[in-house]
Amino acid sequence: MLSKNKIKFIHSLNRKKTRENEKLFLVEGNKLVLEAISSKLPLKLLIATPDFYARNELDSNLAEEVIECSAEELKKASMLQTPQQAMAVVHMPNNALHIDQLTNQLSIALDFIQDPGNLGTIIRMADWFGIRNILCSTDTVDCYNPKVIQASMGAVLRVNVHYLDLEEWLEKANHAQLPVYGTFLEGEDIYRSTLSTKGVLVMGNEGNGISPAIAGKIKHKIHIPAFASGGDGSESLNVATATAICCSEFKRRTY
Amino acid sequence: MLSKNKIKFIHSLNRKKTRENEKLFLVEGNKLVLEAISSKLPLKLLIATPDFYARNELDSNLAEEVIECSAEELKKASMLQTPQQAMAVVHMPNNALHIDQLTNQLSIALDFIQDPGNLGTIIRMADWFGIRNILCSTDTVDCYNPKVIQASMGAVLRVNVHYLDLEEWLEKANHAQLPVYGTFLEGEDIYRSTLSTKGVLVMGNEGNGISPAIAGKIKHKIHIPAFASGGDGSESLNVATATAICCSEFKRRTY
Repeated sequence: MLSKNKIKFIHSLNRKKTRENEKLFLVEGNKLVLEAISSKLPLKLLIATPDFYARNELDSNLAEEVIECSAEELKKASMLQTPQQAMAVVHMPNNALHIDQLTNQLSIALDFIQDPGNLGTIIRMADWFGIRNILCSTDTVDCYNPKVIQASMGAVLRVNVHYLDLEEWLEKANHAQLPVYGTFLEGEDIYRSTLSTKGVLVMGNEGNGISPAIAGKIKHKIHIPAFASGGDGSESLNVATATAICCSEFKRRTY
Repeated sequence: MLSKNKIKFIHSLNRKKTRENEKLFLVEGNKLVLEAISSKLPLKLLIATPDFYARNELDSNLAEEVIECSAEELKKASMLQTPQQAMAVVHMPNNALHIDQLTNQLSIALDFIQDPGNLGTIIRMADWFGIRNILCSTDTVDCYNPKVIQASMGAVLRVNVHYLDLEEWLEKANHAQLPVYGTFLEGEDIYRSTLSTKGVLVMGNEGNGISPAIAGKIKHKIHIPAFASGGDGSESLNVATATAICCSEFKRRTY
């Protein structure tokens, strides 16, 4: 049985403020809930249909609280347009970060990414490429926004997403001699650039690119060349697309 | 003034069936309307506020019919959540295609792409990389769907998107000795593959990948390697992300 209070509590996790106060977030859908179960993050609450529990042979001690209810009841709590058979409330990870954790690998930094779909796609791609840390400016969209979680296909459960003072952290990277890269129209052709296997790749806002304050911390300006003839092609790439192309170039060089 | 009939007509273009019958599609938003005006496609109807006409110094003969109206009136016709100052009804291009047009360049083929955001992002990326033709299976989402147009940032006005019998056209490509590539889990590592500067790159459905019938026409199976350690990373990449990484790899080799 799903009480009214429980439904109210689940709906409240749609708000960033509540998620931050409670340090909890909601995961919906059969596949994502199974990913949450197999992730390292502790589950506060697991709600699913009897069929879901049986089919996946799930123990009753997987979460602090386990609730069995009908698909109908689940639908009342769900934010999805096509509700499924399971949802889970998950504890946010404790993502304490020290600059030393970044010095031997490639990380991504995001300067005010606004679109949930873009952030989710970037997290999913980072996971594919083995990128463990994403540094986000505090004004970047919340990675526990339900749309981000869906677009990440659960990768947000594995990649460490940090919200921090990006300017300060890029300064730390510079101090630690960790190369900081960023994409700019006037940057060097990425295909012809020397790229380090370690560093921080900064990507900017959908409409305005990298802000001047952040740009001041970036020593290596790179650029994905446009191949359209006569300059009549698209003016820009989608930021998730551009991030993927850059990460592919960085990772290719590690061979 | 915007008549009720005109508003009804505009709303009707939200339906694929109407768009196909009328061979017309709707473009909304100041930036996209300006792109439509500077594209080669003829405009049937241009609707904008007096301010928009004045600011952009637009002639009254830019479209078959030009209507001036208030922002309030425009809002009634608009499908956008934050309506802007202009919209246009545009004639679909006549995209007749012959296999010879494909033999000296790289093209993309899409097998049942369902998500409008993915298709729009792919069209925008294709435009950036100078890819002129996208071949879509007839069950791929309509490129004149308003969400596709928005995600493409107007690139759909420049790239030729063809809906056709994909199996038949890949057979034609094989006959013409045009290399046909496709991404498969068991494919060869793309970073270590020999890639032609000419060919057709096939990308598959979001959930199911490339269908068996289409796979049968693909001689060159490639794969973007995952770099996540221990096999615990994401199972797959978003299809628009994967398409971008592949196109970047193909284009890089043309240097």
